[in-house]
Amino acid sequence: MELFVILVEPKYPGNVGATARVMMNFGFSDLIIVSQSLSIDDDDCRKMAVHAQDVLDNALVLGNFREALKHVDYMVGTSSIESKNYKRHLRNALPLGEFSPEIYKMDGTVGIAFGREDYGLLNEELKDCDVMLKIPTSDEYPSLNLSHAVGVVLYELFSHKKEFRKPRIADRVEKEKLYEFFDRLLDSINYPEYKKDSTKIMFRRIMGRAMLSKWEYHTLMGVIKKSMTK
Amino acid sequence: MELFVILVEPKYPGNVGATARVMMNFGFSDLIIVSQSLSIDDDDCRKMAVHAQDVLDNALVLGNFREALKHVDYMVGTSSIESKNYKRHLRNALPLGEFSPEIYKMDGTVGIAFGREDYGLLNEELKDCDVMLKIPTSDEYPSLNLSHAVGVVLYELFSHKKEFRKPRIADRVEKEKLYEFFDRLLDSINYPEYKKDSTKIMFRRIMGRAMLSKWEYHTLMGVIKKSMTK
Repeated sequence: MELFVILVEPKYPGNVGATARVMMNFGFSDLIIVSQSLSIDDDDCRKMAVHAQDVLDNALVLGNFREALKHVDYMVGTSSIESKNYKRHLRNALPLGEFSPEIYKMDGTVGIAFGREDYGLLNEELKDCDVMLKIPTSDEYPSLNLSHAVGVVLYELFSHKKEFRKPRIADRVEKEKLYEFFDRLLDSINYPEYKKDSTKIMFRRIMGRAMLSKWEYHTLMGVIKKSMTK
Repeated sequence: MELFVILVEPKYPGNVGATARVMMNFGFSDLIIVSQSLSIDDDDCRKMAVHAQDVLDNALVLGNFREALKHVDYMVGTSSIESKNYKRHLRNALPLGEFSPEIYKMDGTVGIAFGREDYGLLNEELKDCDVMLKIPTSDEYPSLNLSHAVGVVLYELFSHKKEFRKPRIADRVEKEKLYEFFDRLLDSINYPEYKKDSTKIMFRRIMGRAMLSKWEYHTLMGVIKKSMTK
């Protein structure tokens, strides 16, 4: 499993530096920054990174979230805030404690996306995530500092790091194919138009949490194809 | 169980503010700052605390570590760094993952002490801790930012929060008595002088990890007293 930490439009360079440091503290090094304006050479950014300058130097800076999506087979959205936008998606969110032991079953590339300091991830970005991850926090003040959110997630992953071979998971292309066939299935059965969108997302989420192996993917594709042509 | 986060001579006010915020994120509010110079009204401190100003306003600022010790029945030292100073103490450190489920068995006051950004806790402070807690980190770069160290520990504690009654643990006065009697026992058996110090610390650590109930304390005291007068 190869893991990318993805910061989506971070506002404060200091948070990016602090993220680089905590990544290195827990043994992760692949950082993607989705931003049109942030410079990793900002003073605050460099200062907060301390001994993790390499993480910054090797960071991939991309123009938008869709670009980041192309780099990973499995995209994980994160949130500790349950705003109105999030609530629907979070209904099926995995708690961090359950997610961490699972993630090492994968051997594709996994991205964990952390949203803006103020607005988190946008609805259209959430839709593209395979799974939502909920960081447990107090209801009174759930909004974690960005680098703290990264730190807590990576600490959990680091604690569960184990070396064992796992079945290969379905990659991004395969999953997109699966989702496409599911959508076509909905069409073929005259599924009510007004419910389609939410059902599609729900399917994506279920599959995301299940972390399909290639074998399961092929089996499921067979079932869906069969259901469409009967 | 009542928990105090104790920052020992923090250097950067921003770290104190970020600590206040992450405390509130995970539902903790009692902060002790051991410092002769730090002002909680520093701009960086207030700014980083965001919506956790109350945590700062209610913080107890004390002149030295011994003062802080008086406020808690059970003092936990933390480290992710294994410097020469720490190595001896860390040999018997509890890993964070094992500590968190245990801590809620207590109903006294517990302090978790986080050392200076550069030097951590001093040897004489380490000696006064009942137990050492090791935050697992990468060997390559183990030094966490101060507020990240607090965040990770509190996240673990928050994740294991459960409501159940536990036997009352031995309080500070009782434990000091126990340690004193153990020291006197060493004297009474002509224990080699050069080994005494390390044996005393070892005893403190074992008792610390065991989290004695009052009943166990009294039983053990009985045994030690008996051993001395036989």
